[in-house]
Amino acid sequence: MHVRFFVYIVCVFLVPALIADEGMWVFNNLPKKYLKDKYGFEVTDDWASRVMKSSVRFNSGGSGSFITATGLVLTNHHVAADTLQKLSTPEHNYLRDGFLAKSHEEELKAPDLELNQLVSTLDVTDRVNAAVKPGMSAEQAVKARRAAIAEIEKESLQQTGLRSDVITLYQGGQYHLYRYKKYTDVRVVFAPEADIAFFGGDPDNFEYPRYDLDMTIMRVYEDGKPAKLEHYLRWSTTGAGEDELIFVSGNPGRTSRLFTTAALEFLRDVQVPYLLNWLQRQEIFLQGYSSKGDEQARRAKDELFYIQNSRKVYIGRMQGLQDRKLMSAKQKAEYDLRAKVTTDPKLKEYAAAWDQVLKSLEEHKKLFKRRQLLDVGRGFNSRYFTIARHLVRMADEDLKPNAERLPEYRESNRETLEQELFSTAPIYEDLEQVKLSVSLSLLVEQLGDKHALVQNALLGKDPWARAAELIEGTSLRDPQVRKLLAKGGKKAIDQSYDGMILLAKSVDTASRAIRKQHEEKVVEIERQAYAQIANAIFATKGISTYPDATFTLRLSFGQVKGYAEKGKWITPWTTLGGAFEHETAHGAKEPWKLPKSWHDAKGKLDLKLPFNFVSTADIIGGNSGSPVINKKGELVGLIFDGNIYSLTADYFYSDEISRAVSVHSAGMLEALRKVYGAEALAKELEN
Amino acid sequence: MHVRFFVYIVCVFLVPALIADEGMWVFNNLPKKYLKDKYGFEVTDDWASRVMKSSVRFNSGGSGSFITATGLVLTNHHVAADTLQKLSTPEHNYLRDGFLAKSHEEELKAPDLELNQLVSTLDVTDRVNAAVKPGMSAEQAVKARRAAIAEIEKESLQQTGLRSDVITLYQGGQYHLYRYKKYTDVRVVFAPEADIAFFGGDPDNFEYPRYDLDMTIMRVYEDGKPAKLEHYLRWSTTGAGEDELIFVSGNPGRTSRLFTTAALEFLRDVQVPYLLNWLQRQEIFLQGYSSKGDEQARRAKDELFYIQNSRKVYIGRMQGLQDRKLMSAKQKAEYDLRAKVTTDPKLKEYAAAWDQVLKSLEEHKKLFKRRQLLDVGRGFNSRYFTIARHLVRMADEDLKPNAERLPEYRESNRETLEQELFSTAPIYEDLEQVKLSVSLSLLVEQLGDKHALVQNALLGKDPWARAAELIEGTSLRDPQVRKLLAKGGKKAIDQSYDGMILLAKSVDTASRAIRKQHEEKVVEIERQAYAQIANAIFATKGISTYPDATFTLRLSFGQVKGYAEKGKWITPWTTLGGAFEHETAHGAKEPWKLPKSWHDAKGKLDLKLPFNFVSTADIIGGNSGSPVINKKGELVGLIFDGNIYSLTADYFYSDEISRAVSVHSAGMLEALRKVYGAEALAKELEN
Repeated sequence: MHVRFFVYIVCVFLVPALIADEGMWVFNNLPKKYLKDKYGFEVTDDWASRVMKSSVRFNSGGSGSFITATGLVLTNHHVAADTLQKLSTPEHNYLRDGFLAKSHEEELKAPDLELNQLVSTLDVTDRVNAAVKPGMSAEQAVKARRAAIAEIEKESLQQTGLRSDVITLYQGGQYHLYRYKKYTDVRVVFAPEADIAFFGGDPDNFEYPRYDLDMTIMRVYEDGKPAKLEHYLRWSTTGAGEDELIFVSGNPGRTSRLFTTAALEFLRDVQVPYLLNWLQRQEIFLQGYSSKGDEQARRAKDELFYIQNSRKVYIGRMQGLQDRKLMSAKQKAEYDLRAKVTTDPKLKEYAAAWDQVLKSLEEHKKLFKRRQLLDVGRGFNSRYFTIARHLVRMADEDLKPNAERLPEYRESNRETLEQELFSTAPIYEDLEQVKLSVSLSLLVEQLGDKHALVQNALLGKDPWARAAELIEGTSLRDPQVRKLLAKGGKKAIDQSYDGMILLAKSVDTASRAIRKQHEEKVVEIERQAYAQIANAIFATKGISTYPDATFTLRLSFGQVKGYAEKGKWITPWTTLGGAFEHETAHGAKEPWKLPKSWHDAKGKLDLKLPFNFVSTADIIGGNSGSPVINKKGELVGLIFDGNIYSLTADYFYSDEISRAVSVHSAGMLEALRKVYGAEALAKELEN
Repeated sequence: MHVRFFVYIVCVFLVPALIADEGMWVFNNLPKKYLKDKYGFEVTDDWASRVMKSSVRFNSGGSGSFITATGLVLTNHHVAADTLQKLSTPEHNYLRDGFLAKSHEEELKAPDLELNQLVSTLDVTDRVNAAVKPGMSAEQAVKARRAAIAEIEKESLQQTGLRSDVITLYQGGQYHLYRYKKYTDVRVVFAPEADIAFFGGDPDNFEYPRYDLDMTIMRVYEDGKPAKLEHYLRWSTTGAGEDELIFVSGNPGRTSRLFTTAALEFLRDVQVPYLLNWLQRQEIFLQGYSSKGDEQARRAKDELFYIQNSRKVYIGRMQGLQDRKLMSAKQKAEYDLRAKVTTDPKLKEYAAAWDQVLKSLEEHKKLFKRRQLLDVGRGFNSRYFTIARHLVRMADEDLKPNAERLPEYRESNRETLEQELFSTAPIYEDLEQVKLSVSLSLLVEQLGDKHALVQNALLGKDPWARAAELIEGTSLRDPQVRKLLAKGGKKAIDQSYDGMILLAKSVDTASRAIRKQHEEKVVEIERQAYAQIANAIFATKGISTYPDATFTLRLSFGQVKGYAEKGKWITPWTTLGGAFEHETAHGAKEPWKLPKSWHDAKGKLDLKLPFNFVSTADIIGGNSGSPVINKKGELVGLIFDGNIYSLTADYFYSDEISRAVSVHSAGMLEALRKVYGAEALAKELEN
């Protein structure tokens, strides 16, 4: 069978009706009819509510699920890596060597992890939109909308005590209030070795077949005790069969499927190349640092993984954006919609939206580099700088009424911000020096040596000497100092001699100005324009569509299904035994070296049990750690990757050969029991 | 003792007299007085001629020396790597495993290596300059100069039968005719394992202390027999002592020390960032390709080394260019010179030169990216494309009179070009696909998807599919096809359906146009301006200076000398025993794993013998493989690297902590005998 790349492309807003298992659906607008018609499956409110409340979001950038009444949480090893890295020391390298707690007492508390469980959602579009009056300037509109949102969030927080975020959906077409229960006492129960969690390493990343035990189990605590959970997913010991309908409940990070062709061209020509260059530079320097020795490799491990993973993602995206077939299909659909909008008198008011987007892109182009360097902070890449900037900005913002603050300094977010700010997670000064010098060098390169801001930042020194001085000189390494500065407010910041604080202050005016311009000239214009485009789609196709991903909870679905690659059929499952064969096929060399524990356990393992599997569910980065759920609401798998063809999913959806990759529930259980001797934990899961 | 980075900076044209062991001197203008005054050493014509004729240049981009009357040539392993790579197969990985010929019959013939021995030099400045008449346009000047040079070269070739190149010195201040004896039958006699040749790998590259046996021995043949050499360097079995005066005779590739501050800013802000991004991208993709398996790693080995080495060099250069102390010292010296020029009526005619450079830089900025992509060929990075373009251009150029051709297609260069073009060295299609697709993607990224040239190059396909089609479809893999096309000339090219030939043709008009603009608006303007700046320097400081490096033979000198780094004194030598300690200190992990041969021989080795050493000689890339010579004209070492502080030597010279790194003659001999059992070869060297 011959299948060509992406012959069959579906972009949801381009088609009259859903004709594929596409979509990252919000829980209050699930494609119930489609599921009923195609699969004969009735989504009940109870089923949806249970799945929703069994799902959690990781503030470190991933998803997970509750899997027992006793507080256990399942996620990926690579989602937990941030925490495992922070818990590790030269003596105990949990990220590399894994971990198993033999009792509750041994469970390791994460220094700054926050899990969010979505409890309810509420459409507040009208209230937010009502704040923006006709005739308002962009600046006024931004301010008015920000104030309305802050008010809704604060009100909700006061009423419910829950984390309350107003989410922008359909790029501004709708606003929903999401209320979350927060868990901030999260402890690591089990993690396998990195060598099996990421078996095959960077070369196998985003490839299939795979053989990875990319799992970690944590436990949420309340009041110092394991939390008692009402909602959780029961563990399926058998998993899902071929063609079986499965669901994925998680937090896809970001998609751009509503984007106009011009917006995709901006990504292709400006944004993605810039980010790729940035990532490649980071990767080279982090590799250089890591190559200096084992301890350096340990320190940079999680960050290097993140960079390499992102690099591979962006290369995949670039491939999609540079594919004329994909882009012209997109363009054709856009022409069709615009033709309808122009000719239908009822839709005429939306006709200018595409040109508005174009206008915002022109502005974005002008601001882009400076924004990346200053506001995104690529010119000051150090955790100390991030901390310093938060302290500086928090001091200024706290002087304003809550409704007028930048969103991250609103009262509703204070607890979350402080957890990040006062984290006791280790910061390695030599690593910070590398990161900061590379980024200061980038700053000189891209703004020019004579730019006043660069001169203020470098104080006549070269980027390497200046980075060393800043990192060695800062007192922000001590969380107590951060607390004192935070408590001291504006006065403390004004009086501080800390070099990093002074640096953050020296760039803050420029940085805020860029942010403001970006919000008014880009984000606001796009928000208004995409709201119109979304309305045009609602008007022509009904609201049976899903919004672009926003790192909030979504439900995807699909089938367990193989695919054809270069004329060869790839079956949906791999087996535990396949891991050993895969190792042998690669000469048992790094990164294809199985841990000793696996070799020791080989004789005991049922090698025919499924290990990883693929499905057509529509996922993207952020979905890592999402549970794969069957119709009965049981956990049958754990999302950890997409295949290489899924990397263009940011812009285009296809279920022809694009696949989500998961760890199989049966494989996980077998490994826990036979490889790790975690019988008690396995039993806890099975109950 | 505390020494700070580059406190002590010397730039030759900025100082009234030579006050340091600086300079890459041409053999017909050696700093004889300085050497006499400082070291009491008299450079005789005989000594200089012997050293000159004992030196060779490698067309693969390095230096070497004749070391016996029996045709033996010494160079670096990393200079020979290009040849070792081309000779290697999956069965015989000479680049990784090394090689030792037991007899002349076993010596391995390089597929396309050319060595050049400089035989004589002649100042032809007046004749070249006379061709350019006052009032000529830039276009006319380029043409007239090119014709004069072509005529001189052709005349010389006909008269002497020697390779004859007119070299541009002082960026256009002088023109010299260099005559070379060519050796094209070159065979590999000995190479060590890559693990000891490049012990410490990328992390140790450009660092010191080092423990590398970065050597390879070849033999030149004439008429199928080992060449009988009149001039060669005798091997010193003891090497040089501390503070001893030593010389380095080799071919430094390129320096930019005459550059104006504005030209250095162009490098800092435009050229070096662009090249760094390019190198980092190549490195990531070549790493990705290499990680797929041992055979892929073997195929990409030499290219990946080259890329990583260049990346480290450019990062070092960037550090120098972003150092305000260095730049402001440069600027101050420039102000001083310009002040003199403006106030001295005799020099007034030179005053406009700096603005002329500025003008050329403005033009360069406009052309830069397109030139890199099209003319330099970064948009079409494949050996097949290079071959195709040569064939296409050769066919066109051969229709013109010799004097009007692009330099590389002149008769005087034909033999050299054909050796490259018809080389039987293997080309790996999968590797070429990676390189070509990455560069086609870059082409789309940087010229834009809608550029006519991009559309012609891609034919509606994405870069990955198009690269695959081009590489799979070309018949240029067969050297016989290349010969047929070359022989068939314009007609054969016009009739060819080969996709790669068609691609080369489709971009050639644009590519040639860019080259022409670059030559007329940048190179020619700079040539004239720098000739004036050089004249201003000659007028104020005498001609006792040296021209920027041009990958032609130069003599540097200095002393064997340690240096202080971060408060610690680094002694000039390391020992053979130190290699074992260095291995242990790094846990004997890659790239700090000594070959088995070294462990086997450890008991026999005199571990106290010197292995590597540093000196203050002024060297740069291209000097790799240069002999280090004592006053008696004996070989005491083999240049293979510079320390990290030497990387700014492209622009600035310092002998405070910048050092050249060499393999010691005694260490090489000991390794040959005790590790490799090459007793016969060692005896041949000692005679």
